Order: sequence, then C-alpha cells, then structure tokens
Amino acid sequence: MRILVLGGDGYLGWPTALHLSALGHDVAVNDNFARRGYDVEMGVESLVPIATLEERLSAWTEVSGHEIKSYIGDLCDPAFVHHMVRDFHPETIVHFGEQRAAPYSMIDQAHAVYTQTNNVVGNLNVMYAIAEFDRDIHLVKLGTMGEYGQPNIDIEEGWLEVEHKGRKDRMIYPKRPGSFYHCSKVHDSHNIEFGCRIWGLRATDLNQGVVYGADTEQTKLDSRLATRFDYDGVFGTVLNRMVIQAVLGHPLTVYGNGSQTRGLINIVDTVECIRLASENPADRGEFRVFNQMTETMSIRQIAETVAAEFPGEATIEYVENPRVETYDHYYKVVHTALEGLGLQPTLLSTTLIDHLFDVVERCRARVDTAAIMPTVRWADTSNELPQTGSAFAAAG
Amino acid sequence: MRILVLGGDGYLGWPTALHLSALGHDVAVNDNFARRGYDVEMGVESLVPIATLEERLSAWTEVSGHEIKSYIGDLCDPAFVHHMVRDFHPETIVHFGEQRAAPYSMIDQAHAVYTQTNNVVGNLNVMYAIAEFDRDIHLVKLGTMGEYGQPNIDIEEGWLEVEHKGRKDRMIYPKRPGSFYHCSKVHDSHNIEFGCRIWGLRATDLNQGVVYGADTEQTKLDSRLATRFDYDGVFGTVLNRMVIQAVLGHPLTVYGNGSQTRGLINIVDTVECIRLASENPADRGEFRVFNQMTETMSIRQIAETVAAEFPGEATIEYVENPRVETYDHYYKVVHTALEGLGLQPTLLSTTLIDHLFDVVERCRARVDTAAIMPTVRWADTSNELPQTGSAFAAAG
Repeated sequence: MRILVLGGDGYLGWPTALHLSALGHDVAVNDNFARRGYDVEMGVESLVPIATLEERLSAWTEVSGHEIKSYIGDLCDPAFVHHMVRDFHPETIVHFGEQRAAPYSMIDQAHAVYTQTNNVVGNLNVMYAIAEFDRDIHLVKLGTMGEYGQPNIDIEEGWLEVEHKGRKDRMIYPKRPGSFYHCSKVHDSHNIEFGCRIWGLRATDLNQGVVYGADTEQTKLDSRLATRFDYDGVFGTVLNRMVIQAVLGHPLTVYGNGSQTRGLINIVDTVECIRLASENPADRGEFRVFNQMTETMSIRQIAETVAAEFPGEATIEYVENPRVETYDHYYKVVHTALEGLGLQPTLLSTTLIDHLFDVVERCRARVDTAAIMPTVRWADTSNELPQTGSAFAAAG
Repeated sequence: MRILVLGGDGYLGWPTALHLSALGHDVAVNDNFARRGYDVEMGVESLVPIATLEERLSAWTEVSGHEIKSYIGDLCDPAFVHHMVRDFHPETIVHFGEQRAAPYSMIDQAHAVYTQTNNVVGNLNVMYAIAEFDRDIHLVKLGTMGEYGQPNIDIEEGWLEVEHKGRKDRMIYPKRPGSFYHCSKVHDSHNIEFGCRIWGLRATDLNQGVVYGADTEQTKLDSRLATRFDYDGVFGTVLNRMVIQAVLGHPLTVYGNGSQTRGLINIVDTVECIRLASENPADRGEFRVFNQMTETMSIRQIAETVAAEFPGEATIEYVENPRVETYDHYYKVVHTALEGLGLQPTLLSTTLIDHLFDVVERCRARVDTAAIMPTVRWADTSNELPQTGSAFAAAG
C-alpha cells in the first residue's frame, strides 16, 4: 500500500514511517521541520540526539534495503500539498503534521493563532487535495484524547447514541477541549466529518492518549534511526519527563493534586495502531473515530509507578497546576475498536520503565534542567518561555 | 452602556448599532469593509443603495443627535484589536465581524481557508484583547442555527443534558455544521467556551436563524441610513431572494424538494435580541447560548407564502440543490431564552412581505438577474462565481 506520512520527521511520524516501510508498504514522508524550529525557538533539544531527515532516510535504506521518499514543504501551502498528493498518489495519508503541544499553544496570542491556523489550514489543504484528486484516498488523522475533556459519562469512540425527550440520534460526541491546541483538533474533526458528508471522503480520526516510550523495533536498529525524546515543560509529556526527573535525582513534579486522569499509549502501540487503521480503511463517506490508548492512569499513579520502579531515591513534589482542569473526576474511556482490528496492547511495565531509565542515563549530560518545569500558565495571556540554555551539563 | 459593534457596517451590524444608539447606549462600530469587497469580487451590489460608513455616521448624528464612533481595521490584526478595546473600553462587544455566507465559503479552497482563518483568528484576537485588558467585558457573539445541522432530536440552546449508561452530564450540544462557514462558527464556539473556563470570560453565543427583512425603525428614518439587501446566489438569503424573484416575474427557485427546514427571524427582532443579550449579560465564566430565531418554516413553505401573497403571478420552480443536506427531516428548536428576557416576536406576516415587495419594486432597475441563481455546489472543490455584470437593467 502507498502511504504518505505527514509530519514524518516527528516523534511519532518518523517511527510510524519506519514501521510501515519495514512491513513492506511503499512509504513517503512529508515535513517542513517546524518541530525542529520550535526547539530552536525555546532553546531546547531532544534528549536523544536525532539525525537529519536526510541522514535518517539513507540510514534506513542502508539498514533495511527499503526506500522512503520525502516531500519537504509546508501543508499550509496548497500548491505544495496538491503537487505532493498527485505525485505520490497515496492510498492512505497519515496526518501527524500539526503543532501538537498544548502548552505551546497557550504561550500567548501569537502561539494560539499559529497553532490553530497551522493545524486547521494544513488539514483543510489535505482534505481539498484528496477531494480534488482522488476521493478514495483514506485520511488517517491524528487527534487527541484531550479533545473530550473530562465528561461525567463514558467517553465513547467519537459518536454518542443520544436519547432525548423520547427521540434518538447518533451524534458527534460532545467535546470540551483543554487548550487552544486541543481546540484545533476539535476544529479539524468537525471539518473532516463535514468533508465525509459532502465529498464522500473516507476518514479515520484517531484520538490518541499521552504517548510514552523512546524506541520502536526499527528505531533501535541504528542510532541514526532514533526518534526524538522530549522532556521540556512545553513538549515533554508526563511519563517521559518523570523518568528524567528520577534519573537526575530531582523530585517528580505532579501538577495539582495529581488526581486528573489520562489515557496512555506506548509508542510501539501507536505505530501499530496506524498500521491497523491504514490496512483496514474507513468506508467511502465514513467518519470513523477510534480512541487510540490502552490504559488509564492518574498523574499521581504515574509518578508513584515511576518512583517505585526507580532503583535509587525518588520523591514526588506537588506543584501548582499551570493548566485549568478538574480533579477527582470520572474518567472511563471506551477503546475497543483498535483491539477489534487486532491491536495487542503493550501495557506499562517495569521492563519498559527500566528501559527508559537506561535511555535517560545514557544521555543525562544533555539534560537542561532549567527546561523541565512548566512556565506556561493557562490563565495567563502572555507567558515567558522556559529560561533555558543555562546548563547542558546540569546533571553532571 | 458602552457597546462596541464589530462588523458594524454590515447588513445586521449597522441596524444593531443604530438600535442601541437610539436607546441611549454609547455605541462604537468597527469594520474593515470586507463585505463591500466581496461585492466587488463578485460583481454584485446591494439591491438597496447604501451610503458609505462615513455618510451613515454623519446622517445618524444629524437625524438623532447621537454620535457613533468608528474604528476602521481588521480583526485579524491583534495590535489593532487591542488598541480598539483599550481605547473604547466597552462593557459589551457585539461580534458580527465575520464572513457570513455559506456559499462563499464553499467556492473553493481559497475561500474556505479565508473564511475559517478570518473568522477564527478575528474571534481569538477579540478573546485575547478581553482577557488581557478587562475580563468583565461581555462578548455577545453571533453564531448560526446552521451549526446544529439536522439532528433527529430537539435542538436545545447550546447545551444538552445527556444520560448515558446510567450516568449524567450537561454537555455542549453536538454539532454537524452544513458548510465550511458553519464549521468556522462551531470552531469559534469551542474557542469561546474554552475561554470562559480558563479566563472566566462572560459570553453569549447567539445561534441565529435566517434573517429576512429590509428595514428597522432607525434605517427607515433617512435613505442614507438604509442597510444592505442582498439577493445574489452567494450572499442573498432565501426569503429576500424569493421576494425579488416574484417582483421580477421569475419563478421562485426552491433548492431540492424544499422540505428542508430553517429557523427564521425578522431583522427587527435581531436588533432587539442583541439589546436584550447586552443588557442582561452572562455571568463571569458563563458560556451562555441562545437560539436566536422566532419561527420555523420549510423552504417550500416560504416559497408558497411569498407566491400566495404576491399580487401578480408567481410560480415555484424546483431546481437541483447545490448544498448537501437532508430532506423530510425532524426539526424542532427550543428558543425560549430570549423570549424569557422579553423578546416579543415579530412573526412573518402578509404586511411584512407586502413591505418587501415595495422595497424591491422601488429598486428593481438595480437587479442583476444573472446573479440570482446558485453557482456554488457543495460537492465541487472549484466553483465559478456568478456570471454577473451583464445587465443591471435586466428587469426593465
């Protein structure tokens, strides 16, 4: 199958491209290196060193014998998107190519507007390219569990059977997103659902949980194939960040009382979910939604798990929550669709956490401790970026 | 009360500003004349001649003794929005300043992207200006009944009490918008609801039905105070367009079988609803939604009503529906909130239709018949604009 991976130079886009290529699919990647640009803007870097896309692609050919084609360009440029879709003519487009950090979108007006225009316009351009060129192309779009918010009823997979005043309908699951970034994904979902109705597009919207982990089977094959591993307060996600704090002997910082709950997924399951969604496409006109996560944990549980597993001393510190969210809330997520297609969940285990401790230990000299703490407060409209660049050998 | 009307040069923004000013409020208007620009782009004009904003404002002072201040600029320019909000320091911001035609948003990729970025970014800038400067400012935001789509249950006012698997929650009413324009309003609503949660904004989202009518008490006072009256296939709304077709002796064109149903509201009720919402603000942190419409009719019923009332011959012609929508659907809308605040609905009547016949008769020489028929098909990605400018005296 010809599969085009948008955002194919990113944390998940790159391992996804490798996974699909390793399984024999004809893969191309697109990127505009915006993610590497955010690093420059914030003065931080991936904990694990990453090669350039060019080096990555030639290393993959060297290691596997497979070729991955690349299209360098911005999804907000409609002529570029059009050209790329015509030139590669994919059967599936996997769309990771969006700004994906909630805190980044909450820095200030400019970052909120950038996040929403970048994500919404890029996605519209992809939809238009499909609609104009070949409406059979299956769009596999990455969304997030954070679109749903914290409802007091079970979170179903994108649709909800509603009974109201004696009448029934199957409706879009109501969303209360938790940041301007999460809002942008809700906007995308509404645009795509509309595209399915008017153009008969076939789409799978994957509402993904918080991803953790550093490696997949393919990224481990060669250091040039490594994917990025973020730990900073803006792009770092909770479990990865806590592992780093443990290794550095810093307290594991929990935002608020830690009772807020997240859906989680291991990076090896993410790439497998994308394969399953691609190989089992939605029908023409179908807006299909899967909840792409395998387990549920509170932030406090995650901290306790990391602390318990860490061989040395690890303490937990409760800090002021920069986000606006509810504590001690109900959180039950239905996530049976991908398992129905064959996903075998890789749950969080001591082996996995131990492996992450090793990854961090290997790169500890690269950690900039000044970048770890949150600096972006949801209630503010003008936040400072982390004060970084102070000490690349802070942990030395 | 100091009230700033965004989009105050438009079909509804202008009469709203006059209505509020006449009642003694201290009113300012903002516009960037984008609406007049769309006329130039499409080669059409308002049926009723309209004065420039400068002429309108001085005529109003002449007629009423009241002053309305103006701020000319683009809501997509954050520095301008910030300056305007600080300078005027309104207690209420009424936001009409968006691209509001569904067909315009469906012309092609460029018009879809323009509509969504213009509307979403402008609204985000207004939210940020309020959040940064004074979170007590009440945002009265115009949305549309077309955000809801055609659900098989009653359309409640923005929120829905859901019972699911034995648990309950009050949730955002699920939306299935009918165009990229309607999607942009859903995006706005999600952004605003989020702003209420994180910044404690106070907001009223008005989901308005199709507006008809040409005059309010104030616009009738002087020909320079007239508001625009659109009849073209892109910006003309259904009832106004059919009145023109009747006067010109053209068949009244119904899209599809005409069983699709719309919420309607008279222009005199629109301006009164804005007053009621402004004078009875939402609470801090409250995302309040009103359905701003007074009656429900199918497209076929509207055509039959106009045809029956027209003194001469009027025939109805069923043409291919350019939109993608459902026929013979359930449509029941709750719209009690504004009536609870004191709205006395002005329902569609023979007197009102007769008045519209007179308005059109007076201006019939200005009608460009080539502009009336729909040219923008929802299923297409690259539509032609109306072939206009051919005959300004087509009806002569």
